Amino acid sequence: MRIEDIKNPKFLKNMKPKELERLSAEIREFLVDSVSKTGGHLSSNLGIVDLTLAIHKVFDTPKDKIIFDVGHQAYTHKILTGRAEEFKNLRQYNGLSGFQKRAESVYDCYEAGHSSTSLSAATGFALARDMDKKKYNVVAVIGDGSIGNGLAYEALNHIGSLDTKLIVILNDNEMSISENVGALHNTLDKIRSNFKYNSAKKGTKSTLNKIPGVGKHLYKGIKLVKESVKKIYMKEGYLFEEFGLNYYGPINGHDYDELIMYLEMAKKETRPVLIHVITEKGKGYKYAEEDKTGTWHGIGKFDKETGKAIKPDDDKISWSETISKQLIDLAEKDEEIVAITPAMANGAKLNGFKEKYPKRFIDVGIAEEHALVMANSMALCGKKPFVSIYSTFLQRGYDQVQQDIARMNTNVVIGIDRAGIVGEDGETHQGIYDISYLSHIPNMVIMAPKDSIESGNMLYTAFNSNKPCAIRYSRNRINYEVSNYEKIQIGSWEELRKGLDGTIISYGDFLENAVSISKELFRHKYSIGVVNARFIKPIDTNLFESLLSKGKPIFIYEESAIIGSLGQMLCAYASNHGYNTPIYTFAIKDKFIVQGKCDIIIKKLELDVNSVTQKIRDILGG
Amino acid sequence: MRIEDIKNPKFLKNMKPKELERLSAEIREFLVDSVSKTGGHLSSNLGIVDLTLAIHKVFDTPKDKIIFDVGHQAYTHKILTGRAEEFKNLRQYNGLSGFQKRAESVYDCYEAGHSSTSLSAATGFALARDMDKKKYNVVAVIGDGSIGNGLAYEALNHIGSLDTKLIVILNDNEMSISENVGALHNTLDKIRSNFKYNSAKKGTKSTLNKIPGVGKHLYKGIKLVKESVKKIYMKEGYLFEEFGLNYYGPINGHDYDELIMYLEMAKKETRPVLIHVITEKGKGYKYAEEDKTGTWHGIGKFDKETGKAIKPDDDKISWSETISKQLIDLAEKDEEIVAITPAMANGAKLNGFKEKYPKRFIDVGIAEEHALVMANSMALCGKKPFVSIYSTFLQRGYDQVQQDIARMNTNVVIGIDRAGIVGEDGETHQGIYDISYLSHIPNMVIMAPKDSIESGNMLYTAFNSNKPCAIRYSRNRINYEVSNYEKIQIGSWEELRKGLDGTIISYGDFLENAVSISKELFRHKYSIGVVNARFIKPIDTNLFESLLSKGKPIFIYEESAIIGSLGQMLCAYASNHGYNTPIYTFAIKDKFIVQGKCDIIIKKLELDVNSVTQKIRDILGG
Repeated sequence: MRIEDIKNPKFLKNMKPKELERLSAEIREFLVDSVSKTGGHLSSNLGIVDLTLAIHKVFDTPKDKIIFDVGHQAYTHKILTGRAEEFKNLRQYNGLSGFQKRAESVYDCYEAGHSSTSLSAATGFALARDMDKKKYNVVAVIGDGSIGNGLAYEALNHIGSLDTKLIVILNDNEMSISENVGALHNTLDKIRSNFKYNSAKKGTKSTLNKIPGVGKHLYKGIKLVKESVKKIYMKEGYLFEEFGLNYYGPINGHDYDELIMYLEMAKKETRPVLIHVITEKGKGYKYAEEDKTGTWHGIGKFDKETGKAIKPDDDKISWSETISKQLIDLAEKDEEIVAITPAMANGAKLNGFKEKYPKRFIDVGIAEEHALVMANSMALCGKKPFVSIYSTFLQRGYDQVQQDIARMNTNVVIGIDRAGIVGEDGETHQGIYDISYLSHIPNMVIMAPKDSIESGNMLYTAFNSNKPCAIRYSRNRINYEVSNYEKIQIGSWEELRKGLDGTIISYGDFLENAVSISKELFRHKYSIGVVNARFIKPIDTNLFESLLSKGKPIFIYEESAIIGSLGQMLCAYASNHGYNTPIYTFAIKDKFIVQGKCDIIIKKLELDVNSVTQKIRDILGG
Repeated sequence: MRIEDIKNPKFLKNMKPKELERLSAEIREFLVDSVSKTGGHLSSNLGIVDLTLAIHKVFDTPKDKIIFDVGHQAYTHKILTGRAEEFKNLRQYNGLSGFQKRAESVYDCYEAGHSSTSLSAATGFALARDMDKKKYNVVAVIGDGSIGNGLAYEALNHIGSLDTKLIVILNDNEMSISENVGALHNTLDKIRSNFKYNSAKKGTKSTLNKIPGVGKHLYKGIKLVKESVKKIYMKEGYLFEEFGLNYYGPINGHDYDELIMYLEMAKKETRPVLIHVITEKGKGYKYAEEDKTGTWHGIGKFDKETGKAIKPDDDKISWSETISKQLIDLAEKDEEIVAITPAMANGAKLNGFKEKYPKRFIDVGIAEEHALVMANSMALCGKKPFVSIYSTFLQRGYDQVQQDIARMNTNVVIGIDRAGIVGEDGETHQGIYDISYLSHIPNMVIMAPKDSIESGNMLYTAFNSNKPCAIRYSRNRINYEVSNYEKIQIGSWEELRKGLDGTIISYGDFLENAVSISKELFRHKYSIGVVNARFIKPIDTNLFESLLSKGKPIFIYEESAIIGSLGQMLCAYASNHGYNTPIYTFAIKDKFIVQGKCDIIIKKLELDVNSVTQKIRDILGG
């Protein structure tokens, strides 16, 4: 059977463990081959192949609801539900999503992208099912990184007090996106050590065989078995037992006999149960297996023979690397600087900082809220915390930015990484809301650098501002130029080009486009200036009023959601100050933005140089 | 010593338990008397008197950092740090805050208002202290309700993995704001039952006396004692031990011998420790002691002899009650309606719903994020969840509203209670940001009713919209009129008064003011219309364009933060559509808004009828 020919998971019902093992191997080969061509999430998907097959063998989807936390490890699930053919367009515009997607398949019952929602979603499914007196299973598959997030805890706490049928599968691969941290991790670590991974299979079986009346009849899954198993393992899973879930495990996530046995048992439970499955991230592909830093978590195209990434052939580096280099520079001179990240050390390129200043680097795991409050009290002690966090994940910390950092007006510097259109991760990861959700927070200073010189200056300014600051930068690659680190006056804009017929106000990566638009318009005989609104908040009222008083059209051009954008603030400012200068805002329209290469998406949004040039020409000519 | 004469807590150092007991009684009397006159938080403060005295006796504030979670239970702390005199102005404009406030006292090292930040704040203090090689104690006092929130878990998880000196005091009063829920609660319940509260003191002491070498030398707090105590209690606090914290408890929170002994022990620890203290909420005031629903949590003025609340003498009811009545009505006809609240059953007046439809009511405890994701998957199953949540606490669920509810575009109805200026709770509770943080989220429908007829119609519309909807209402009291529950066209506004010289656009409670302003302006010969922008999103573009095309000034008048307001959206809309009609926005300026009676604050913000009338006259006359 060709992987591409799989239409649905029904064929698994009759497969024997040996056959499943062969299928696993084929799927792993397919995954490595496919992801090497498109990029995507690899290690987590390789680790979960066997578990996914076992789940689909034991449960009856789509009637039974399977929720993969985050959803980037659902590739095998996608293959089994008839979507292998579409992997050639994985994460591309109009192609297969890298996450679970309800519109893609009836087998995708929930969607995510941000971690740790699966347990809450499962709770809702289970409670609605009970209210409707329906019968089906609800299974949440959550990683050991995700279960450390507060949202998962709130759900666990609720689930444990419910008298409902709900199965939590803890997919424990000993690392979340990068290194795992926290007490829960240590607990799991202890369990794993005791488990003695390599001899697991034999050990478990022989223990089970010793239970009277069990042995071969194991699959009957009678109460006695469950209780006995519980007793054997209870001590190890006591944490979860304390939460009120029946704990089964640890289980070898690559052993079909074990997996199927325990899943069958869980299926017969009438109360919440947690199955602790130990898997090996990257399994079956040696480069991914050996990865300890998370390099193989989400990757671009690569050569599958050598494991070498196919990198763009230029001298550019990412914004993350830029900021990271500058942070290292500044931290050398300023001992109060501390770097904090919620599980993004690798993504945000902070490993260099960590190596150089191990005592001034804190990775709190997937715990955005905690990271921000902790940073705040460190700032109260005179530290200068730099919290590195993706724009889309900072959403989880909105209340902490507002209530803790901004309200106490502390000098916490938030590095908003992956701001703007993010490309292939799509809807769940777009970094286009940060300006809208931060700009209305009193005391906040929000900046966006146009280049590496400016980002260096902004970091320096932020660390010496005594104010809460956010610096937003995209996932684009830029030319790195060394900076002298000079202070920029807070709230000051910069006039890059003067214009007689109007002005474009922009910031960040879009500023380069703005200059191109201005040049393009010049070819059409329009003299349009360009202003770098490097501070989105506070705005430069002097410069803005000088533009307003000229009476020539102002165009505000942003890689940001239109509602709550700088453009809207400026329109209101102009209105309230009695100007009737024409103002037009070009920003991202009010809908969720799909996946696809950044340039394709920006063009679809009519925010590319040509589209905006044309729109401005229409306005000026009209 | 008069309570008002206390300047700082140093005098406690020499006090004997008996003396402390007398002082406690005096403080309790002071608290009941004081809060009966001003309103405020009562039961939590009565419960924590002895614990607070013991903490201040054992630790050296302000050098040692004491963080009270939420901070509304810090009244005794305020008294001990020289603020008793100011209780007569508690929670009033320019008066004493009901929470910890850095600007008020050096003894207040952190501020809160939203729950569960204390452990993260303590982590930051402890880590900064260690980096600076300083020596002081960091103590977080957190309630059993607050510790169930995800943020607290993220912190616990981090703390447990740290090799730092940090003391967590779990103030367990068996109920958070109202009823406590969740597995953690059940675990604590078990511990409490075993503890056999009434005979606690004797039991503990005799057990300790049996440990060789302990007895009278207990205060020496040597390692042996700690280990022995740990062994005795370990089984009960295993949950916390699993998290990596040394567990001491449960301890009688009203017994000074025990309290001081354990606090002294904790002080000598070099690793994170959790002390489980059992207190009685409302202790010392019989009406508060007997309260099981949370009535005495936060209260207005009352007669301290009878325990009767001093209620406004009118026929009005609160918005919470209004919505609650209507929800009960609608739920009768529509069986899919489910009510969900994160610990606000009492505050949001949902007890009636709970009584009538116990199986369709879910209180998840202080778990805003979980409540919203769970609601979302219930909606995917065809349920119509109504999530009741205060505007300021919905901030905690911003990401879940966006990523889960709005992105999956489900029919979850969010009842945003306490929107607008909230009065005495002040800065940490203002409900003025919801429009700013929700309006840029695609798919969201945002409404604000002007009266009970409209709120009924809005609820009915929302439940039959198949869209994510938010309905915002204030903590004001209104006249309740019975509604027929009719559908309102989504996005339609209502012209209440026509005007020749301009129009005021407003919504919610401010609409009544807008009508008054219009009438007032009419006395000054201006004919100003009034439009009810009952949908803040989507806007009524037809009606708005018809106003714009008249060219007469438009005034947008909102009880909302100015940045991200409806006014800004409308200014941008007008600009982008080429109108140069004058538009002026009157909303809440960009700063944190302090405590005080709503009318005082609204006047200070120059948003009262007189101020706005004058401003419009200035504009029209200019």
